[in-house]
Amino acid sequence: MDAIEELALQPCPSSLYLRPFRLTYRQNGAKKFWDFMRTHDSVSILIFNTSRQCFVVVKQFRPAVYMCEVERQHPELFQNQDKESFSRLEDPLPAAVGVTYELCAGIVDKPHLSLEEIACEEILEECGYRVPVTNLRKISSYRSGVGVTGSRQTLFYAEVTDQMRTSEGGGQPEEGELIEVVEIPLEDSMKFAYDETFPKTMGVIFSFTWFQNNIAPQLPNK
Amino acid sequence: MDAIEELALQPCPSSLYLRPFRLTYRQNGAKKFWDFMRTHDSVSILIFNTSRQCFVVVKQFRPAVYMCEVERQHPELFQNQDKESFSRLEDPLPAAVGVTYELCAGIVDKPHLSLEEIACEEILEECGYRVPVTNLRKISSYRSGVGVTGSRQTLFYAEVTDQMRTSEGGGQPEEGELIEVVEIPLEDSMKFAYDETFPKTMGVIFSFTWFQNNIAPQLPNK
Repeated sequence: MDAIEELALQPCPSSLYLRPFRLTYRQNGAKKFWDFMRTHDSVSILIFNTSRQCFVVVKQFRPAVYMCEVERQHPELFQNQDKESFSRLEDPLPAAVGVTYELCAGIVDKPHLSLEEIACEEILEECGYRVPVTNLRKISSYRSGVGVTGSRQTLFYAEVTDQMRTSEGGGQPEEGELIEVVEIPLEDSMKFAYDETFPKTMGVIFSFTWFQNNIAPQLPNK
Repeated sequence: MDAIEELALQPCPSSLYLRPFRLTYRQNGAKKFWDFMRTHDSVSILIFNTSRQCFVVVKQFRPAVYMCEVERQHPELFQNQDKESFSRLEDPLPAAVGVTYELCAGIVDKPHLSLEEIACEEILEECGYRVPVTNLRKISSYRSGVGVTGSRQTLFYAEVTDQMRTSEGGGQPEEGELIEVVEIPLEDSMKFAYDETFPKTMGVIFSFTWFQNNIAPQLPNK
């Protein structure tokens, strides 16, 4: 995953993935506009393996996170970019600065499937566990971004066992996914959640905390 | 805040606020690209008013959230949009579907200020409390988005009293901000956090939960 080479940056005036729009409106009489992007809603799943008392999360190289760190070191790279420019990144940062720990997740782009069915597909594709839809428990839904995207994310909890593991997971290589499945032992999980040397999403910190409050008290003592 | 009129949508090929880029690279030998946007890092603050034992959050109309709900009802609006088209929204949804509850927050765009100083400025501007930097406690930092922006957010906790309130807050109208300050009583806070009829960010749910685990046990009993 860490073998990242031939990095190059260019402005992106049109993209199949980023669809920028401008909304103009009048609020309490004042004319305003807001630029935003349409993206898909998403699902995200806290997976707990009861056979080995560990959380199952994913780890992947995130270009947007990587470039955020590159800009911190080299702000000039993003300045004065005209539409034709193309910058090869000489002496790039190590790929590890762009690798994040995240909950298993996916976008909601299949209108014929329920959120639960999409969540189960993602658990299988990314982590290799075959989970029945009825094993999912909804934790909550919320806005995953309010400024740029406005998308809704629904967070589920799923318990799995070693017997449910049918493949290695890892995502869909044909879609360019390269995902590492990582197990976080329950006893280390809160330390991991607040250890900032492991870059992660708020979803990991929140859901581990939710588990401590809602599931851990009911676990059989060892 | 809810008086939203004359809504119109147009594609947005260039924006001062959305800066799309494409990163091309080779990962484990395979050529890839990723479209992303550069945005600023941010700070976000859980504010607890000890005088009246309530959380102080903000509520505002979010165009991106509103349009997410509009697309759910009228997906055709975003389809077949060419660069010149401009759609007036006839019979729009009520503005309330785009109003969200959020933690006080702001972007990190002042290189001469520390994260703590920026957080204190936001608390004053948005919520009207003058808080010394030393009153802030860092909860954690994490990635607020990994797919599109990659930005880092740092979450703080701040205790305030009624004596610290020096203004109404409400944001900076000259920058178009129109923010309502809302108090959530501590005893209702966990019910509020998981009540999906109040649209909110994960930051609200997570930080209320964090408070229950880390601060509530030390509160003096009434």
